[in-house]
Amino acid sequence: MSLYEEIQKIGQRAVVAARELALISSRKKNQILEAMADEIEAQRDAILEANRRDMEASRSAGLSAALLDRLELNDSRIAAMAKALRTVVGLKDPIGTRISRWIRPNGLVIHKVRVPIGVIAIIYEARPNVTADAAGLCIKTANAVILRGGKEARQSSIAIAEALQTGGARCGLPDGAIQYVAYPERDAVREIVQMEGLVDLVIPRGGEGLIRTVVEQARVPVIKHYKGVCHLYVDESADLDMALNIAENAKCQRPGVCNAIEKTLVHAKVAPVFLPRLVERLAARGVDLRGDEAARAIAPTIRPAEEADWTAEYLDLILAVKVVADIREAVRHINHYGSHHSDAIVARSEAAQRIFANEVDSAAVYINASTRFTDGGEFGMGAEIGISTDKLHARGPMGLEELTTYKYVVWGNGQLRV
Amino acid sequence: MSLYEEIQKIGQRAVVAARELALISSRKKNQILEAMADEIEAQRDAILEANRRDMEASRSAGLSAALLDRLELNDSRIAAMAKALRTVVGLKDPIGTRISRWIRPNGLVIHKVRVPIGVIAIIYEARPNVTADAAGLCIKTANAVILRGGKEARQSSIAIAEALQTGGARCGLPDGAIQYVAYPERDAVREIVQMEGLVDLVIPRGGEGLIRTVVEQARVPVIKHYKGVCHLYVDESADLDMALNIAENAKCQRPGVCNAIEKTLVHAKVAPVFLPRLVERLAARGVDLRGDEAARAIAPTIRPAEEADWTAEYLDLILAVKVVADIREAVRHINHYGSHHSDAIVARSEAAQRIFANEVDSAAVYINASTRFTDGGEFGMGAEIGISTDKLHARGPMGLEELTTYKYVVWGNGQLRV
Repeated sequence: MSLYEEIQKIGQRAVVAARELALISSRKKNQILEAMADEIEAQRDAILEANRRDMEASRSAGLSAALLDRLELNDSRIAAMAKALRTVVGLKDPIGTRISRWIRPNGLVIHKVRVPIGVIAIIYEARPNVTADAAGLCIKTANAVILRGGKEARQSSIAIAEALQTGGARCGLPDGAIQYVAYPERDAVREIVQMEGLVDLVIPRGGEGLIRTVVEQARVPVIKHYKGVCHLYVDESADLDMALNIAENAKCQRPGVCNAIEKTLVHAKVAPVFLPRLVERLAARGVDLRGDEAARAIAPTIRPAEEADWTAEYLDLILAVKVVADIREAVRHINHYGSHHSDAIVARSEAAQRIFANEVDSAAVYINASTRFTDGGEFGMGAEIGISTDKLHARGPMGLEELTTYKYVVWGNGQLRV
Repeated sequence: MSLYEEIQKIGQRAVVAARELALISSRKKNQILEAMADEIEAQRDAILEANRRDMEASRSAGLSAALLDRLELNDSRIAAMAKALRTVVGLKDPIGTRISRWIRPNGLVIHKVRVPIGVIAIIYEARPNVTADAAGLCIKTANAVILRGGKEARQSSIAIAEALQTGGARCGLPDGAIQYVAYPERDAVREIVQMEGLVDLVIPRGGEGLIRTVVEQARVPVIKHYKGVCHLYVDESADLDMALNIAENAKCQRPGVCNAIEKTLVHAKVAPVFLPRLVERLAARGVDLRGDEAARAIAPTIRPAEEADWTAEYLDLILAVKVVADIREAVRHINHYGSHHSDAIVARSEAAQRIFANEVDSAAVYINASTRFTDGGEFGMGAEIGISTDKLHARGPMGLEELTTYKYVVWGNGQLRV
């Protein structure tokens, strides 16, 4: 069989499994998830052994320390995988809930009902735990899942997927509901994302390169986020102590994530007071500051920013700062240079708050709070499969509801169209 | 400028217009829509003259009578366009409504708010009225729209778009909010649907060929429906008179549309009674019946069906019939051969109704009613921009709400992530 045919077979098996999964009760799905968690723990040694092989190959290939860290599994990371699956057990199952119901003048009763999407493909990179996390959320929402991780994590991902399948099967997980695409060929991704009619949704998780490749090749819907270029705007009406605290939290609490700020825009009226304090506070945390001329005129230790700094996602202790004439300039800058992910204003003025909330075109807009809250857990969704900077279907953190669709069930007693 | 650059400019103008549109009040948007309707009427002669040129060219090119009918405008069709725009005025504006609101333990107040999608491209064929219908729904929902109709309707569409722009501009429609892509090059469609970052959504409206081309070329999200292969299943528990009425209505009331049935599946227990009555009823309406062997054994006037009949969208007075052993076979057949659009059961048995409602994986599932109700107007949405057989974002009839997205506005008083 060709690679194309092999992958088509995987897609067809997933479609059959998805139809079975859609009819399984919440209680049974939870039993399956528990058994998956148990088996991850039971297979710990085999998973760690597979991971050791991945680590060795990656070290020989000269992978960076950061990548090796993402790849590495240990007892506590395996325990965390099992725990994450058990957390999903505790979440409310959205499947089957009635979103709305109305009656038409001709007596038709229309129910809009939440149902699974069907078959979801997850394309990811070096973190093997995505295998378990993504599978858990998909099974909870009765979606069959096709998993394809990075080649560095191949052995680890296969071992984890096998544990999930074995554990799940014990409690009635349909054959084909969780499939890992182990073919080493690079083209496997292309074949997966072009399976129109079999795969309903692709979620790529990883760096910008991976995501661009998936978007360019895909013929099925993709939900993604390229990057997080998040802003803090400090208004003239800001509580400057609050602004300093939020800047420090949003930049330093975990600089390597997509909801950390990369830029701070400061209203010209408060810049002479605020910028020196910001420099002092962030320098103490080791942050490298880059700024426009107006910012550097106030705080000369700030290094000059280049045009590329305004669109850069540093994912590091670096912050670009800019002085703006007013909130209009701040909003324009954010909409033009930002990534439509998460942006915050610190302001006492209700007018400024309202302008910012209405006009900043981002998935999450914060008034007097840190951007770091854009997260399924922090939003109260319990878990997330990713964050979308797209506008279709899901925007912002994607929890269980975002892994569902709906259908209309229309009840009649013989109605005909006239 | 190259075609690529020209189309990019259109995309950039649309993005700017979309940001302005998003801030316009419902009242003002309605004034704009009224002015658009007025100007369509005022420009009637110019539009009809443009349409005459399109009709002449299309007649010379030997277009079919059906295509010429879709292309042709007259006084009453122009009046209908203006009326459709005024109907949209009367609909509730979904923009700015709060979808939900909750408070987190740390005091953050999260608002999920309905906002415009941004820039929507509509790719269509020979019906010039789509120009006005699509523009009206997009402006109501504060989306900028890029329109690209078929070359047969080029002059008519340009004339209609000009009237919409002129009328709208009088009441403050932002420049660039309605743009018609008049470049004759075929590649214009490719350039439009690849404008990632500028175009947020593409809605193709037309035949399967157009839609496949758009899906293959697109790098931005597409919502579509390829075709409607709709089924009626007559259960053993059916009220056979009701089943006959629904079969006749769903097949004959308007056979050329996507929600007309193309297939009827009949439970083996009632087939000997039902099929002869069905043949009699539909033959009187000029329907050509094709069936499997079991159906032909009961009603020999039915012509033999081929495998291709089970997936065919006839859009004509043709119906394929099949005898099934039970409801399970009916559901399997529909999920396998159907288009996931609209499917109906006629049954008295509540168990059968429930199985059908739960297991048929279609946008709209009908219990004891005609499939012909899958329509924005019939669902009470007031208007529709199309019907989606996709599962992401919108499924089934797409009304105004389906032309919106949401964002999260998060209100705090200095919250930091710990």
